[in-house]
Amino acid sequence: MGEKRDKIPGPKALRVINTMKKHAYDSTFMYSLVISHGHNCIIEDIDGNKYLDFTSNIGACPLGYSHPDIIETLAQYSSNGTYKIAGQDFYCQEHADLAEDISKILPSGFKTFFINSGAEAVENAIKIAYRKKGPLPGISCIGAFHGRTLGALSFTASRPVHKYNFPEFPSKRIKFCTRDDDPEIDAIEDLLKENKIAFIMTEIIQGEGGYNVASKKFVSNLRKFATRYGVPLILDEVQSGIGHTGKWWAFEHYNIRPDIMTSAKALQIGATAFDKKYEPATRSALSSTWGGGNRIDMAVGSKVIQVIKRDKLLENATKMGNMLRKGLSEMIGKKGIVDVRGLGLMIGVEFDTAHHRDKKLSDLFKHGLLTLGAGQKSMRIIPPLIITKEQIHQGLDIMHQVLMRN
Amino acid sequence: MGEKRDKIPGPKALRVINTMKKHAYDSTFMYSLVISHGHNCIIEDIDGNKYLDFTSNIGACPLGYSHPDIIETLAQYSSNGTYKIAGQDFYCQEHADLAEDISKILPSGFKTFFINSGAEAVENAIKIAYRKKGPLPGISCIGAFHGRTLGALSFTASRPVHKYNFPEFPSKRIKFCTRDDDPEIDAIEDLLKENKIAFIMTEIIQGEGGYNVASKKFVSNLRKFATRYGVPLILDEVQSGIGHTGKWWAFEHYNIRPDIMTSAKALQIGATAFDKKYEPATRSALSSTWGGGNRIDMAVGSKVIQVIKRDKLLENATKMGNMLRKGLSEMIGKKGIVDVRGLGLMIGVEFDTAHHRDKKLSDLFKHGLLTLGAGQKSMRIIPPLIITKEQIHQGLDIMHQVLMRN
Ligand SMILES: Cc1ncc(COP(=O)(O)O)c(C=O)c1O
Ligand SMILES: Cc1ncc(COP(=O)(O)O)c(C=O)c1O
Repeated sequence: MGEKRDKIPGPKALRVINTMKKHAYDSTFMYSLVISHGHNCIIEDIDGNKYLDFTSNIGACPLGYSHPDIIETLAQYSSNGTYKIAGQDFYCQEHADLAEDISKILPSGFKTFFINSGAEAVENAIKIAYRKKGPLPGISCIGAFHGRTLGALSFTASRPVHKYNFPEFPSKRIKFCTRDDDPEIDAIEDLLKENKIAFIMTEIIQGEGGYNVASKKFVSNLRKFATRYGVPLILDEVQSGIGHTGKWWAFEHYNIRPDIMTSAKALQIGATAFDKKYEPATRSALSSTWGGGNRIDMAVGSKVIQVIKRDKLLENATKMGNMLRKGLSEMIGKKGIVDVRGLGLMIGVEFDTAHHRDKKLSDLFKHGLLTLGAGQKSMRIIPPLIITKEQIHQGLDIMHQVLMRN
Repeated sequence: MGEKRDKIPGPKALRVINTMKKHAYDSTFMYSLVISHGHNCIIEDIDGNKYLDFTSNIGACPLGYSHPDIIETLAQYSSNGTYKIAGQDFYCQEHADLAEDISKILPSGFKTFFINSGAEAVENAIKIAYRKKGPLPGISCIGAFHGRTLGALSFTASRPVHKYNFPEFPSKRIKFCTRDDDPEIDAIEDLLKENKIAFIMTEIIQGEGGYNVASKKFVSNLRKFATRYGVPLILDEVQSGIGHTGKWWAFEHYNIRPDIMTSAKALQIGATAFDKKYEPATRSALSSTWGGGNRIDMAVGSKVIQVIKRDKLLENATKMGNMLRKGLSEMIGKKGIVDVRGLGLMIGVEFDTAHHRDKKLSDLFKHGLLTLGAGQKSMRIIPPLIITKEQIHQGLDIMHQVLMRN
């Protein structure tokens, strides 16, 4: 890593990519990276090229790769011929275990429903709110990303092309305020006053939208007005949950609790958790063939929670995140870097133009550092929680080398 | 199996079920069955009780349990620390392989997009149709089940409680005709004439709806009118696909092809496949964190296709299905059994009342035979494709014993 590679994609990668072109539809591939395996924070491609991973597969690999505890779990299931079952028809130990393990890091009084993706977790969150309030408009934020199924997508407002020609459920949009002095920070109250709203849904750090961090007052306003007008507050923690911000949930930085919340990615499986007061609203509302039946994913999810606790990875995320943000902040104002922001190990670096950002992402990739885009012109950085000081410095060195030259 | 068991749930199962009650929301559990492992067509619960499985986990375990080829695949991934990746950001060999493997059993000119569940596969199917036609009403059938996300759910018409208080996208319903002489068999044309329809979507065998088999004329009508009026015909093969009817896809029994189709369950992963003429409609339309990145599921999916071919399991499904249907048909007219129907190993047994059906399902369970409910008052039977003559007879013996007594 570090030196520029000119032979990417290699011959084996090229074969895979060509087969894909022939037989598969795809969407967001931006690099010619064909993943083969990985260790720690290093991903290796099918031709043997190595990459320092500052993406965790969009946050979904919080313990990096080949973590001994995860490999142990995989080995356990390698001879289990019922590793994936119909999880709403038949029970399994792992379902109960993960429900119990996650309950310890949830707000008190919450129970969980497991499902297959972040989008499905969001679908279930809004279904519970609709059950309670009826099919009224929901409030979501400009720049929000809540998933691609048509319910979740109705409240996603990141790029119009995501939803061109699709039908949408009624919604109202508010500005996602990142500053306490934003003049629109109280706008939510006017929308709620009429008492015709099914829910308020937001991320705490907009993920796809550019790693924008909500202002304290914005979040406390949402909580306050949601309570005052009796509207469920849904917090979407699909990308921010399970440790990347340095706390289990991003909302813990704000001393509030949601009524309904979602998780996925780092948890290894989709989850919707909410206060037991909504239990009657679940009647025949939530189901899925594999929901709660993906035993490997649930066992790994439990392990993830356990290892984060045991190895104090929340503390590590905070420390390493601060170090990384500090190093990146020194580049603000230079070579078209206009902002660095984030919480813990979720860090956004904003460029002057989309074109410049894309060019730099691709250059970093060629130099062996994996990052992703987010928002109009930001780079998203979300390394595994196990990342070390040395790896942070290695990443920063590559960043310096690539970002600080013309 | 065969003898009645009085100590279900056992002590270990009871502990799991109690933990679930405390920490998880659930939906459709009907038996106290906590799955531990399984071999061939036998599932073993956590207390060591064995069950002959006539459900394949709702069709999702077509090769039964601990199939040597599947165990070999699991073992391969037991030391791969990148077994689940962000499949729309990074490539992997398994994604290309499964796309290629499935292409060989799809209509010519089709390509595939992989996703996490049947519901998500349906969401993508209708998204492609909307892209093409705009947010117009879609046509679906009374009794249809297409999944629980709000888009798929809008076209599901099985039980009103599934969607109480939820918003819905515009839809028109037609009768799912099981007889060629049904007077409503041409009703679709009137709906299409106005040219304001986004798609027609149906199952070929209604799954959740009761294992109702579409009439030949009904299906050929749908195809004919869809073509005539330029409306995409979406066939939902989530439950019927990958062999359970004795062909790869249920629509092959009808000598037609869809424009867009879905698969999941037996494939191990959700998939939406469609004609390349729709490729422009995919632009930024389809994505998901894990879509195409679940390497174990994709590798197992490829194995499933390969083993079905190698071991001639389509033929086995046809033969065993005929044998089972014949055995069951002898009970029609006796003890409240009013109908037996199906294709291959997808068999519905209809009872006189829901109460009677539920009582018998539970009795079969106590006698060690696993079946499921479907529709108002039917039992659904969908054994693994590997089932043997001996196991069919063993199942029929238990059925006789339980169903033919008062
Ligand atoms: C905040 C948020 N919500 C929901 C989703 C959708 O999750 P999935 O891609 O697993 O469907 C994402 C995915 O990026 C996300 O970041
Ligand atoms: C025909 C059909 N379509 C869609 C679905 C939804 O699939 P999933 O439960 O994987 O979301 C099902 C599930 O039973 C089904 O039978």
